[in-house]
Amino acid sequence: MSVSDVQNINTWITQINNDYKTAVSVDCVIFGYDDDAIKILVSKCDMPPFKDEFSLLGDIVRPEETTDEAAKRVLMIKTGFTDVFLQQVQVFSNIKRHPLGRVITVAYYSLIKIDEDHLAHLEKDAYLQWIPVSEVKSLAFDHYEIMHTCFQQLQKQIREQPIGFNLLPKKFTLHQLQRLYEVVLGIELDKRNFRRKLSTLGILKNIGESQSDVSHRPAKLYSFDEAVYEKKKTAGFNFGL
Amino acid sequence: MSVSDVQNINTWITQINNDYKTAVSVDCVIFGYDDDAIKILVSKCDMPPFKDEFSLLGDIVRPEETTDEAAKRVLMIKTGFTDVFLQQVQVFSNIKRHPLGRVITVAYYSLIKIDEDHLAHLEKDAYLQWIPVSEVKSLAFDHYEIMHTCFQQLQKQIREQPIGFNLLPKKFTLHQLQRLYEVVLGIELDKRNFRRKLSTLGILKNIGESQSDVSHRPAKLYSFDEAVYEKKKTAGFNFGL
Repeated sequence: MSVSDVQNINTWITQINNDYKTAVSVDCVIFGYDDDAIKILVSKCDMPPFKDEFSLLGDIVRPEETTDEAAKRVLMIKTGFTDVFLQQVQVFSNIKRHPLGRVITVAYYSLIKIDEDHLAHLEKDAYLQWIPVSEVKSLAFDHYEIMHTCFQQLQKQIREQPIGFNLLPKKFTLHQLQRLYEVVLGIELDKRNFRRKLSTLGILKNIGESQSDVSHRPAKLYSFDEAVYEKKKTAGFNFGL
Repeated sequence: MSVSDVQNINTWITQINNDYKTAVSVDCVIFGYDDDAIKILVSKCDMPPFKDEFSLLGDIVRPEETTDEAAKRVLMIKTGFTDVFLQQVQVFSNIKRHPLGRVITVAYYSLIKIDEDHLAHLEKDAYLQWIPVSEVKSLAFDHYEIMHTCFQQLQKQIREQPIGFNLLPKKFTLHQLQRLYEVVLGIELDKRNFRRKLSTLGILKNIGESQSDVSHRPAKLYSFDEAVYEKKKTAGFNFGL
């Protein structure tokens, strides 16, 4: 290293430390589904000027963790889940997006099954609440824009990849699967076309069981055939639903 | 605001200022194409321990700009282009990715036409160089991983969206278009199948001109019909090439 190298390094370090430092956070859009609506998990905000508004779940990224690790930490602490679909979507960096100063945030979205165990865990935290995406009119900070961007990403990806199964029980009926697509995409689908497409895709396994405890004729139960999907994926698989 | 609110805010501000600040940078993977290869624009690095290795073009995000604005600034200063395809891909945040301290980077990729004017501009900067993606064996920092991730994104997106036209001249032959797909995807495509698919898609405009200055029989020239594409896009258009 020459003297000029050292001067360069010192200039860089000084500039980074003094002028170019910012806080980095993660914000998680946690989607859940319960037959009739796609919902997001929100928390009552305790930071003025957004006090008592709803906000997404998030936190500042700590010095010893990556942004992915920070998002996993937020999810784990708030929902109890460690193994859920979680995906980085986009950075939001408007310079005035946070009232306390410059905070650049990395948005993630995740998909979880809303089941009994899970609801029991959440009830312990009085600040948390599930609200249907369609009923969200505003959120604290720029969180409405973040939610909107992530929801569009979900609508796009559910047509291309088998991510929807993360929102359904392990065993599901074809009606449940169709209903999920209708609710996420906000459209009605023709039953015969939907089933024909699915049968062409060949990624559902008839598990030889039927619904129980239903008043109507029990429907057949299916599961997602991940092995078949993985084989087809390399050929440029597209759900096209 | 109550007293406890104020205390909370002070705690937050102190924590953000002292413990949770980091530098944020952008790194741009600039792809260009010249008939035979997909190339990236790199710069000789002047920062130890990577001195004289090649690195991507990037910079620290300034206090008064968003990450998108920082990426545009880097592109403009280095290539002279202000209006090119530029897209955020992913955050890279491994805690030891930068020798001078914690720097979280936002990766962007962009597509530009390598033409004469452009090459003339670049020649002014002795540090800049185009190298074929296939010949890149290593880069400074974690830039090889960033390049690899962005190249995979390009390979995925070129099958789904009409982004490839950003790499071609405004008027091109069907052979040039097929060659672009072959080079990006690293596969050979059947000429008849390729042309049949394109004709089904209906997004090319025969502009009624032919090549000039060629030794072989001049081929017809086409352009991308953006208006048709925009109409078809809402129905969930997929290139499928």
